[in-house]
Amino acid sequence: MTTDKPYPLNAWYAAAWDDEIKHELAARTVCDMDVVLYRCTDGQIAALEDACWHRLLPLSMGRLNGDEVVCGYHGLIFNSAGRCTFMPAQKTINPSACVRAYPAVERHRLVWIWPGDPALADPAKIPDFHWNDGTDWVGEGGTFYSLKCDYRLVIDNLMDLTHETYVHAGSIGHEAITDSPFDVTHTDHTATVTRWMIDIDPPPFWANLLGQRSRVDRWQIIHFQAPSVIVGDVGVAVTGTGAQHGDRSRGVNGAFLAVISPETEKSCHYFWNFVRNFRKDDQQLTLALQKGHVNEGRGVYDQDHVVLEAQQRAIDRNPRMPFYNLNIDAGALWARRMIDRMLVAEQGQGRHAEQAAE
Amino acid sequence: MTTDKPYPLNAWYAAAWDDEIKHELAARTVCDMDVVLYRCTDGQIAALEDACWHRLLPLSMGRLNGDEVVCGYHGLIFNSAGRCTFMPAQKTINPSACVRAYPAVERHRLVWIWPGDPALADPAKIPDFHWNDGTDWVGEGGTFYSLKCDYRLVIDNLMDLTHETYVHAGSIGHEAITDSPFDVTHTDHTATVTRWMIDIDPPPFWANLLGQRSRVDRWQIIHFQAPSVIVGDVGVAVTGTGAQHGDRSRGVNGAFLAVISPETEKSCHYFWNFVRNFRKDDQQLTLALQKGHVNEGRGVYDQDHVVLEAQQRAIDRNPRMPFYNLNIDAGALWARRMIDRMLVAEQGQGRHAEQAAE
Amino acid sequence: MTTDKPYPLNAWYAAAWDDEIKHELAARTVCDMDVVLYRCTDGQIAALEDACWHRLLPLSMGRLNGDEVVCGYHGLIFNSAGRCTFMPAQKTINPSACVRAYPAVERHRLVWIWPGDPALADPAKIPDFHWNDGTDWVGEGGTFYSLKCDYRLVIDNLMDLTHETYVHAGSIGHEAITDSPFDVTHTDHTATVTRWMIDIDPPPFWANLLGQRSRVDRWQIIHFQAPSVIVGDVGVAVTGTGAQHGDRSRGVNGAFLAVISPETEKSCHYFWNFVRNFRKDDQQLTLALQKGHVNEGRGVYDQDHVVLEAQQRAIDRNPRMPFYNLNIDAGALWARRMIDRMLVAEQGQGRHAEQAAE
Repeated sequence: MTTDKPYPLNAWYAAAWDDEIKHELAARTVCDMDVVLYRCTDGQIAALEDACWHRLLPLSMGRLNGDEVVCGYHGLIFNSAGRCTFMPAQKTINPSACVRAYPAVERHRLVWIWPGDPALADPAKIPDFHWNDGTDWVGEGGTFYSLKCDYRLVIDNLMDLTHETYVHAGSIGHEAITDSPFDVTHTDHTATVTRWMIDIDPPPFWANLLGQRSRVDRWQIIHFQAPSVIVGDVGVAVTGTGAQHGDRSRGVNGAFLAVISPETEKSCHYFWNFVRNFRKDDQQLTLALQKGHVNEGRGVYDQDHVVLEAQQRAIDRNPRMPFYNLNIDAGALWARRMIDRMLVAEQGQGRHAEQAAE
Repeated sequence: MTTDKPYPLNAWYAAAWDDEIKHELAARTVCDMDVVLYRCTDGQIAALEDACWHRLLPLSMGRLNGDEVVCGYHGLIFNSAGRCTFMPAQKTINPSACVRAYPAVERHRLVWIWPGDPALADPAKIPDFHWNDGTDWVGEGGTFYSLKCDYRLVIDNLMDLTHETYVHAGSIGHEAITDSPFDVTHTDHTATVTRWMIDIDPPPFWANLLGQRSRVDRWQIIHFQAPSVIVGDVGVAVTGTGAQHGDRSRGVNGAFLAVISPETEKSCHYFWNFVRNFRKDDQQLTLALQKGHVNEGRGVYDQDHVVLEAQQRAIDRNPRMPFYNLNIDAGALWARRMIDRMLVAEQGQGRHAEQAAE
Repeated sequence: MTTDKPYPLNAWYAAAWDDEIKHELAARTVCDMDVVLYRCTDGQIAALEDACWHRLLPLSMGRLNGDEVVCGYHGLIFNSAGRCTFMPAQKTINPSACVRAYPAVERHRLVWIWPGDPALADPAKIPDFHWNDGTDWVGEGGTFYSLKCDYRLVIDNLMDLTHETYVHAGSIGHEAITDSPFDVTHTDHTATVTRWMIDIDPPPFWANLLGQRSRVDRWQIIHFQAPSVIVGDVGVAVTGTGAQHGDRSRGVNGAFLAVISPETEKSCHYFWNFVRNFRKDDQQLTLALQKGHVNEGRGVYDQDHVVLEAQQRAIDRNPRMPFYNLNIDAGALWARRMIDRMLVAEQGQGRHAEQAAE
């Protein structure tokens, strides 16, 4: 084990929904780094260290002047690359005067930033999150900003859906989930948990969407992309119509989407959505699904919120206690193993070198 | 001195009033241990570690199923002995899966738990607190849960009543207290402070209860039982009628009762009562006495509350400053000496061994 | 560098406005020392350690009895020199029983205390702050108690007024400040920043006071007295009338006054005033100037308040980051250099000796 931070830095993390970033300054903390985000006049996203080079005042307390940020204290100006272009009362600008600029890309309706080595920030590595594009799949989600738990606890939560039976009894919970076997597969940087519940009575949520009360086959296929993206392909189809073999035409299909970005070691931003590929123009249904997930403490994700923060407090209270694992944790354990691999790889490079130099 | 926690673990501590523990889950922290309490269908009290074996979620966030606790996250079930009896999605239960069960006994209208070695938890060692039984003595008290001070500051407070003259001027305070000599005696695990004020004008509180304005003999006999129980035998009798020699027939007699359970090193639960052995059916009087002690900040114990928390803050501000002692502290010093003995004995056994093994 | 506290102790610090200290107990924390202040019947100021010798309860929770303080817990009494004159229930008073008494002097409408070695507390060393006396100069100020920043950040703020252009745009801010050259001079324990802006359009604030719209010469002459007093001689005069050479008769002259007393390492009390030597009887103007500086978040000092606390939070978030300096910081750097000298001198004497003795 290592005492380092529990998140890799060389990764793309969502920092905001795209429509949250306008031509104005917005502060975010990601991986314990304070960042100020804004949209340039050409539509590109700028992401700068949110502390003036001079006296550390958050640049987000300043103002935009064109595509440059003016510090609200002494008026230093930084361009979108982080370079200082003006210093008060002096003609010469210290050439080393700059703030860090983070690689930032807008994709899949989210703004992603790369807190690690900019040289490694390849946009091709942005997770596949096309379900969130608003084209083939539709839905409106939201964000739990500053959720008070280690981001990995959210991953644990989503990689094992048996918790639905207990945390979400009465809505999507169902004893069939706990009773049904599941498979875990993985690649180098992904893990997938697949569970099929064959010939069961549909839970109310899915019966309503299917529009009939027949027996169904239900699936939950959860894809994890390290370090912090989850897409859960979920749905039901009339039993015996071939869903498990690829024909979902007699069913309804949704996907829960999650990007969980570490804010600090013990807090995170949880961007979520629930999308579907049917009744795509039904705004009423979109709204109902959104409210079913988060609704002033009464949605299913609100229930998770309470559990996750309580779990973090319990971990803080019992710092030496190990986690014991059950069979149901197989998916979450693969996810954590991949995160650990990223951490080891990253620490093997830059971080250990830094430590040696201290 | 030792850097260990300031409370012995091998002791009975009150965790709740008996009527607070029903057939439902109740969370308490005692000696920095999170405990979930509930009453089984046979009336017995169960007290379990309030953190699931699996992922630490407080069991108190779950629900009862008969006499077993179902975790609110993944549905693990624990019986009242702490043993896991169900794991989701698996037939085999890990035989080591359990949470800690604390010895718990209901006595003297309180629920007592033993945070230390269960093998040593002898119910015969529960402090004599029969004044609280509601039989020979009657009264209604209350609890300051999470009072923000070291539990020993409350003991200091109660073992020296000269503070009444200053903190409670105008009600039970009286200069005679400060002026009168007192004795301190002790056994192995008790200390007693005895003060007689002979032939004095009764303070208003006692004059009212006595029902006459004659001169009185007043007594304060404070029994401490280590580590945290105090019974204060207090009263007045018409002077010259032999109270000091055992005949209290011309007087009125009350007792202030206190159990102070450490919550953390710097907070405690203070269970209090004030009982009497006269006018026992007078509900009005019971209520008046209760309100005299705690009444939205205006009772005498409310006054102590403010002082105790301010004292703790001052100690935190001056961590290296020693306490200087006065003659009046003799009783409190004996109480602390007994606590220290328990700590030394306990650390001589188990705790040091643990530390050596680390 | 040193890990010691960032303020010298052998210095006079303002603890209160004189009219705040009456014949009643008032608590203040200065240089991380809790102090109780009161005015004796002869008008002298007493300043005692705010923790009873016996059990540390803040004496400010007690009461005055003549010129002595009665502890609110057990009634110990301390005179204004800090010596214990009464102990409950005992005739003999421990001769070592005392609380610390701080040298305290009332001058220039403020109460000054000396947290360091009392033998060095020479009233002649109280900073020259006669502008605040209410005689030649008049004005009404105020205090930001417990401003959440290192006191030196306030000094930085006041020693460089280019920040007015950015923080106070629209009132006293003016691009001429940033554009104009300035001089820094210093003595052993003072630093002075002088800036003249010749033949400029007056900013609205000064144009109003001057009562005419002619071009002006504007001056900002900021005197720093180590460790924490600043007097800013500011004003404008009709251009070409000799102000820069000593004739201010065709101008208006004010002074901003600041004493910044460390409360803790990361908080301070900021006593401020803005005085003038013209229209001295104009109460309306006095009030308008006061409200211009602090007015429920809308005054110019309220704007600084927000910036200073944000800067401190940023420093806490980036503990290893050095401060980079600009030309405009020359005055602040001299101020800090003088504080550092005082610290080194002080640590060279007493403090290191103490550490060696531990």
